[in-house]
Amino acid sequence: MMKTEILKKLRNTNEYISGQTICKELGVSRTAVWKAVNQLKEEGYEFEAVQNKGYKIAKYPDLITKSEIESQIDQAAVIKNVKFFQEVDSTNNEAKRSAENGAADGTLFIAESQTGGRGRRGKNWVSPAGSGIWMSLLLRPQLTPTYAPMLTLIAAVAAAEAIAQVMTDASPDVCTQVKIKWPNDIVVNGRKVCGILTEMSAEMDSIHFVVIGLGINVNTTEFEDSIKDIASSLYAESGQHIKRAEIVLAFEKAFTRYYQYFQDKQDLSKVQDTYNSMLINVGRQVRVTEQNGDFTGIAKGTNEKGELIVQKQDGSEVCIAAGEVSVRGLYGYV
Amino acid sequence: MMKTEILKKLRNTNEYISGQTICKELGVSRTAVWKAVNQLKEEGYEFEAVQNKGYKIAKYPDLITKSEIESQIDQAAVIKNVKFFQEVDSTNNEAKRSAENGAADGTLFIAESQTGGRGRRGKNWVSPAGSGIWMSLLLRPQLTPTYAPMLTLIAAVAAAEAIAQVMTDASPDVCTQVKIKWPNDIVVNGRKVCGILTEMSAEMDSIHFVVIGLGINVNTTEFEDSIKDIASSLYAESGQHIKRAEIVLAFEKAFTRYYQYFQDKQDLSKVQDTYNSMLINVGRQVRVTEQNGDFTGIAKGTNEKGELIVQKQDGSEVCIAAGEVSVRGLYGYV
Repeated sequence: MMKTEILKKLRNTNEYISGQTICKELGVSRTAVWKAVNQLKEEGYEFEAVQNKGYKIAKYPDLITKSEIESQIDQAAVIKNVKFFQEVDSTNNEAKRSAENGAADGTLFIAESQTGGRGRRGKNWVSPAGSGIWMSLLLRPQLTPTYAPMLTLIAAVAAAEAIAQVMTDASPDVCTQVKIKWPNDIVVNGRKVCGILTEMSAEMDSIHFVVIGLGINVNTTEFEDSIKDIASSLYAESGQHIKRAEIVLAFEKAFTRYYQYFQDKQDLSKVQDTYNSMLINVGRQVRVTEQNGDFTGIAKGTNEKGELIVQKQDGSEVCIAAGEVSVRGLYGYV
Repeated sequence: MMKTEILKKLRNTNEYISGQTICKELGVSRTAVWKAVNQLKEEGYEFEAVQNKGYKIAKYPDLITKSEIESQIDQAAVIKNVKFFQEVDSTNNEAKRSAENGAADGTLFIAESQTGGRGRRGKNWVSPAGSGIWMSLLLRPQLTPTYAPMLTLIAAVAAAEAIAQVMTDASPDVCTQVKIKWPNDIVVNGRKVCGILTEMSAEMDSIHFVVIGLGINVNTTEFEDSIKDIASSLYAESGQHIKRAEIVLAFEKAFTRYYQYFQDKQDLSKVQDTYNSMLINVGRQVRVTEQNGDFTGIAKGTNEKGELIVQKQDGSEVCIAAGEVSVRGLYGYV
């Protein structure tokens, strides 16, 4: 894709690059380059063009388009290609439909807005244009379905690390606390900024595909009444507008690393320490809601399968694989 | 559906039932009854109509249509409604597509022929018109994905029981051995007559839906070269043509019972003895093919999770949850 290639060449350089060099290196006509540059201008990129010197990009817009993301992805990344949508019902739905039709491992589905964004257990997820990152990563791991819950914890640790990093870069003076609420909410200063919905299609002993959907509130300033006390955005917590592609790229780098760790060991033993260091549950009272009733205890951390270890009042420890876990002092649980 | 209601009334009775009685009891016109009876005649049902007495069905064709099956299903059955197709790519695909669009728990998708029938791990499953039963049951159990593999064993035990029953009814003098090869092949006299492909769509801690697909070779007489030594059909083993709807109904009754047992205990403890009594693996040498290599041992049976217990040569026992298991003396493993 021409736009991707041009962005690759011009990004992160202070040199001007001539149209002729671009033509030559990409093996295309000047008209083709000129057309692609014009398209990029229309999308919001600002170019400096100096006679006899060439082009330079002066300003990057806050875009999450195919060319903006693909032009910054490593060869070795888990994300191999990007499908961008101005509007979609839900990126998870789109990813699942595409997966049924053969879409490849490592395809990232990302949308400017979702008309039917979903959270876990069918909950609604508000996802207006420009205010956040609504994306789903399609993976086709050669695993049995029992391993799938670990992938959602890997996505959580990668998202938390990415968010911590871009917020620190954007406002090093603002003290923010980026934490994970088990299994995969990302909270900043005690409010949720990111939710993860992982879905899979599988046979009994092999996964067809996994779709890891992330909703990250980046610039959101207004929340629905039902969530306004527990939800927030990176902007609301840092006072800085962070470019969404930076967050996607930071996530991609972290996810690639942790996914590799997971594949080395087929468990979370190499990820566990980092995950637990960010786990807001640790040492706090939690209420576990199960089919057979509720109980409370103190969360100790996760094990190598990603299960939450909870010490009950009688001192015994249980490992929670599924279910709702409320953390005292968070999301209104007092 | 009128045809279903008429079949319900006329089935299993030696009495003639008058058109007037049918009209009155169903609250419809004589023309409507006459039309439905004509449609049934076209499908192959043979009616005896006697003046002043009414209708009686003299002969039932070998059909697996919506009305043929629904007219025989209990109120309490797991199967709540039937979608019949003359031809479909694969009943599992059709069930999955319908499930994504909201199809209800307990819908049975059944086809006269499949153009792209699938077995486990993407293997091809030949499914020509009239020669077998190609069907998929959609379930929406409130379970975590870890329980899903048990459902495929329940389907296996129900299919084996159904096949044993209809074959015994059809030819009590023919000695046949109906067995299960772990996890879910049904073999008669050492040859495979039924395969099961269970697929699911799930979040990490809850199942959206499960599709249990069964392919039963009923009247097949010719097999592709690649499978002709290991595959068979009920007709080939018994010399009898068994009506396919009978098998579907026998499966439905057995499945309903075993599914209830499973739901009572959330494990296979109440199903295990029956399953193991039909398990061909028991006491025989098996070769287990895993990612880390193969090993051989003696199969002991399954545990309450449905895992196969294998005693290795050093005497230690391992539980196999997934993977290929060959049984010595079966399917060409000598």
